Amino acid sequence: MGSQGYRVAILGATGAVGTELLELLAERKFPLSELRLLASSRSAGQTLAFQGDNLTIQAVGHDSFAGIDLVLASAGGSISQNWLPVAVQAGAVCVDNSSAFRMAPDVPLVVPEVNPADLDHHQGIIANPNCTTILMTVALWPLHQVQPIQRIIAATYQSASGAGARAMAEVKAQAQAILNNKTPPTESFPYPLAFNLFLHNTPINAQGYCQEEMKMVNETRKIFHAPGLRISATCVRVPVLRAHSEALNLEFEQPFPVTQARELIAQAPGVKLVENWENNYFPMPIDATGQDDVLVGRIRQDISHPNGLELWLCGDQIRKGAALNAVQIAEALIERGLVKTP
Amino acid sequence: MGSQGYRVAILGATGAVGTELLELLAERKFPLSELRLLASSRSAGQTLAFQGDNLTIQAVGHDSFAGIDLVLASAGGSISQNWLPVAVQAGAVCVDNSSAFRMAPDVPLVVPEVNPADLDHHQGIIANPNCTTILMTVALWPLHQVQPIQRIIAATYQSASGAGARAMAEVKAQAQAILNNKTPPTESFPYPLAFNLFLHNTPINAQGYCQEEMKMVNETRKIFHAPGLRISATCVRVPVLRAHSEALNLEFEQPFPVTQARELIAQAPGVKLVENWENNYFPMPIDATGQDDVLVGRIRQDISHPNGLELWLCGDQIRKGAALNAVQIAEALIERGLVKTP
Repeated sequence: MGSQGYRVAILGATGAVGTELLELLAERKFPLSELRLLASSRSAGQTLAFQGDNLTIQAVGHDSFAGIDLVLASAGGSISQNWLPVAVQAGAVCVDNSSAFRMAPDVPLVVPEVNPADLDHHQGIIANPNCTTILMTVALWPLHQVQPIQRIIAATYQSASGAGARAMAEVKAQAQAILNNKTPPTESFPYPLAFNLFLHNTPINAQGYCQEEMKMVNETRKIFHAPGLRISATCVRVPVLRAHSEALNLEFEQPFPVTQARELIAQAPGVKLVENWENNYFPMPIDATGQDDVLVGRIRQDISHPNGLELWLCGDQIRKGAALNAVQIAEALIERGLVKTP
Repeated sequence: MGSQGYRVAILGATGAVGTELLELLAERKFPLSELRLLASSRSAGQTLAFQGDNLTIQAVGHDSFAGIDLVLASAGGSISQNWLPVAVQAGAVCVDNSSAFRMAPDVPLVVPEVNPADLDHHQGIIANPNCTTILMTVALWPLHQVQPIQRIIAATYQSASGAGARAMAEVKAQAQAILNNKTPPTESFPYPLAFNLFLHNTPINAQGYCQEEMKMVNETRKIFHAPGLRISATCVRVPVLRAHSEALNLEFEQPFPVTQARELIAQAPGVKLVENWENNYFPMPIDATGQDDVLVGRIRQDISHPNGLELWLCGDQIRKGAALNAVQIAEALIERGLVKTP
């Protein structure tokens, strides 16, 4: 840590996203003069390694944000709701990974490759979108800019990591139990996920859509500034560890040439075209794991609609789907002069 | 086996579908006076248990079909192409599980709950549709009869069993290897499937659709007698053992009331409505495994289209997706007097 960097606090450093935040700050040489790890009193006193130091986790409290320039929060909605206003009051800018503030009109919801200018109007809190939304918007933005998308029908294949580090361990434990002909443990999930799958088990609204699906709908509209964009989604949890996949059917007002779509995706930041048609090789979760880019492929003209395109993507849920996007937001805030200079 | 039953041959009795055929013939008390097991010379001499007897597998040859009334074939396309014409010549009616004859104009492609009358025009061979098609057509037929479906956008979650018994064992072996931090074996599949997934690795056509996807398109049109039905599909292999799932987006000419769709599904043969909205419980592969019915649920108005419905299904790939449908075709043939009486 240098003397010229920013004073950063991570709220919720022990989770899957929190530990990835630490890795990314180091990997991306984020300009830090202080790194303060905050968590509930349950985790306080634990230490986490960071660039050769052992940092001690402090219980979050009313004095925790004194002198902090930037907060990266990844501790869940209610903790963000309790503490981020305190951090803002103390003068910090907060990037929040929870869903608590995402749809608040005065809170920018940002994917840096898509809508970085929304950061300029922040009131202290910037929301990091839901993982499925981030992956989808990064992939579709290059197309949407050329010809606005009219309708999206999404089916997701979501990994265990979206439910946290314990859920990832649980899927492995379940697989081992099933291989041993034993009853798989279920704590994080309501049903066994290993060798199984189920519709995303978030609360369902009156229209029959679950919260996760409505996040894709509402967040994408907000990020694209496209309130009329028609979206339907079916969100499914699958026994994969940490990369999400999405099958996306897109409808435009006019035909969208496939070759143009491929070129746009190949050139866009944050996405990587992965299409080896001869070898039938397209994006897979194991290849997206640990990668910054969202892998996109199998782009094809929808044979059921003249103005349709089908495409497939895989992206690391913990990286671009959460921690990386949050760090990129922090970097964009600095680049745009929106965090007070140290 | 009674003296009054039919003389049945199973071609390809040792595979995942073949062994399920044997179980179903016993379970459903299929009227048999003889059961002849045929396979390649590689499997000849092996025995399989059937209702207390040990039946010896015979190598298929030109005399194999003498005296046989009904052939259930599940040995792959080229074997069916070689031997079913021989069986027909010998006077047998053949139900073929391969894709070899499915799109031939003079071959009925039948899901007994949907188009049993197509059997009446058979020329000796009846094709059993592809697993994903069977599951989809059984579920959608009750709706399609009330108001013709205009367009289907499907995303599948296909189990390992579709690639055979060895593939199922391979997924387990892969999972064990990964849990032990070892390199997973890949023989049946080009990539590891355990804790991963990939687009269905069948050959891709000039439009970018794989064979499995085009089966859903072309077979559904044939079964529904709806050559103009617009269908697009994305077929994905997931690390599940033996039940397929499908996320289906449907478009009608007029709005289709959700309550009516639910009632129709609840009453239709071959499907079972599984919707516990309060407990967020919907069809899952582990619940569909071993069941005859295709489980359908999460039926909802598509919020992106006034005439759209979304639904979700799971069905046992080896049962209704293959062996059960074949046995049901055989039963329907008998019921309709289309197999010569013993």
